Amino acid sequence: MSQPEQLPARPTIKSVARHAQVSYQTVSNALNAPERLRPDTLTRVLRAVEELGYRPTQAARNLRLQTTRLIGFRSTRSDGQGVSSIESRFLYALTSAARDRGYGVILFAADGDEDEIAMFEDLVSRGAVDGFVLSGSHRHDPRTAWLAEREVPFVSFGRPWEKTSFDYSWLDVDGHAGTVAATEHLAANGHRRIGFIGWPEGSEVGDDRYAGYLAAAADLGLPTRGLTVRGLDGIGAGTQLAAGLLGKAHPPTAFVCVSDAMAVGAMHAIEHRGLAVGRDVAVIGFDDSPLATVVQPAMSSVRQPLESIARRCVDLLLDRIDDPRSAVLTSVVEPTVIARGSSNPDHPSPPDGA
Amino acid sequence: MSQPEQLPARPTIKSVARHAQVSYQTVSNALNAPERLRPDTLTRVLRAVEELGYRPTQAARNLRLQTTRLIGFRSTRSDGQGVSSIESRFLYALTSAARDRGYGVILFAADGDEDEIAMFEDLVSRGAVDGFVLSGSHRHDPRTAWLAEREVPFVSFGRPWEKTSFDYSWLDVDGHAGTVAATEHLAANGHRRIGFIGWPEGSEVGDDRYAGYLAAAADLGLPTRGLTVRGLDGIGAGTQLAAGLLGKAHPPTAFVCVSDAMAVGAMHAIEHRGLAVGRDVAVIGFDDSPLATVVQPAMSSVRQPLESIARRCVDLLLDRIDDPRSAVLTSVVEPTVIARGSSNPDHPSPPDGA
Repeated sequence: MSQPEQLPARPTIKSVARHAQVSYQTVSNALNAPERLRPDTLTRVLRAVEELGYRPTQAARNLRLQTTRLIGFRSTRSDGQGVSSIESRFLYALTSAARDRGYGVILFAADGDEDEIAMFEDLVSRGAVDGFVLSGSHRHDPRTAWLAEREVPFVSFGRPWEKTSFDYSWLDVDGHAGTVAATEHLAANGHRRIGFIGWPEGSEVGDDRYAGYLAAAADLGLPTRGLTVRGLDGIGAGTQLAAGLLGKAHPPTAFVCVSDAMAVGAMHAIEHRGLAVGRDVAVIGFDDSPLATVVQPAMSSVRQPLESIARRCVDLLLDRIDDPRSAVLTSVVEPTVIARGSSNPDHPSPPDGA
Repeated sequence: MSQPEQLPARPTIKSVARHAQVSYQTVSNALNAPERLRPDTLTRVLRAVEELGYRPTQAARNLRLQTTRLIGFRSTRSDGQGVSSIESRFLYALTSAARDRGYGVILFAADGDEDEIAMFEDLVSRGAVDGFVLSGSHRHDPRTAWLAEREVPFVSFGRPWEKTSFDYSWLDVDGHAGTVAATEHLAANGHRRIGFIGWPEGSEVGDDRYAGYLAAAADLGLPTRGLTVRGLDGIGAGTQLAAGLLGKAHPPTAFVCVSDAMAVGAMHAIEHRGLAVGRDVAVIGFDDSPLATVVQPAMSSVRQPLESIARRCVDLLLDRIDDPRSAVLTSVVEPTVIARGSSNPDHPSPPDGA
């Protein structure tokens, strides 16, 4: 016999089970798979539900008493330049981490925030997921408020870029620290005129990486004036932007690039001028995507620890699913410089003859 | 009043609905979300279920009366060389196509067939999906038999590589036709000594692509003896294998490669010998992955129409879900040669000076 307990302020599936003198699983079956129960048991459970006034919250009911063991994640379009390979790596890591905790991942296509929210609504109303992992956070991001208002568990890979009236758990990579490390790496190899190839002002991630480059250059007493160019991401764009800087009277001897695609473009521009990447002009990218080892020389890049981030996203989300009042945790992870031939002055130049 | 109907040999959810004088949706609710029904309605429906002896088949019951609107698909590990980018492109296309039909995709990690079957079992027993899209078919593939025996709807991207005792719908790309087209493309550019860089014998897809090269060479009266090399996929492997052929007394002047990774490796080997890719030695890859536009010159490749394949996979699967007796359809799709600088003799060689 257990001690008599105070009736909880709000009936739960557990209090229904006690009241009907059945197991938690039987209540869950009554609500989710009633055909598995004998009619008299089912009737008893449903009567207990009614007597206690048990009403799962909308979100909890929609989430089918949190028994889907599925996590929602938005799929991102591959743009044909390998940029999505980072997403692909994160997705595999997320799927593996989820599986280790007995969860699957529901992947859904969405174009933009409103569309993603429409998918949230659909999946939540269908009771198809226990919660979501978000990515691609940005200013004026309506997704977190939508989920928070409906008490749908979620965690974000990507920090909030502005104040919100609610708290939520997130993980992010410290892009600023990444470009600081990249700039210091090039300076340690003797470079004094270090250029920066970035994205247009206004992208949170891009601005953060640009700020890291500026801060490191200031700390090291290096010039930046006339050494920074910014444009939309892509190999072609990187080639054009780097060519512009290389054509100047005092060109940079090294490039910190906001992405691997930009860095591959910079390598092309260097080669087009008949210079040797690594020996004459150094390049470092960001993301350590598969592009980095496709080019010659292999490309230095700033690597994001996606596998550990994915694992921690899953852990935080499942904590949240288990207990909606679990602690909100936020964490910024430092990326690592992976040094390869493109920033190595000793990299052998390609042979000139057969 | 509808005409009196013969009682079907096997009761269905529709006959239960008629018997209980409720809608199909009410029967579905009684079985899946009984708390939405008034107790008397619920009792009437469950009595009809019992009186008719309605028993959904195990698979159908597990699939929760086919109302999940979710498709299962295995996630593939990115191997860090961009090879998975094809999978990433297919996955996005699959997700988009599913969404257009009101479906989501459940992605799950699995290492090998047995592990994937364990995931099938888990998802089916949890009633988490309506069916599966398979990829990576091969000989002695136990997955299709497992699904077919349990009457779980599925469609395969990838043909059966041996006779099966059951039929199922599949789509595949004609790899043989792809390497025929690649070989003809190089021959049309004047090449007579065309080498082949393939995967080790025993991989169904690799053998098929190799056979296409051999068939085209035979048709065109081109030599193949001493011009073919095979090894495990990768850029490094491609470099080594191509270097071996280029070091021969009578080296090939062009390479048909079984994959883009192999082709990038071949380009590196050509450059290492101080030769110009496209002008001196031509290269064509397979898959038209993002790698193809990262390298310089841009790489010719055989492109798989993944978007249309994904769409047809979804259509075929949903037909199957709607009607388990829907027609079995199989289709082999021709890939297309995308010609770029790596197989173009007029491609400008890189400038030699600044």
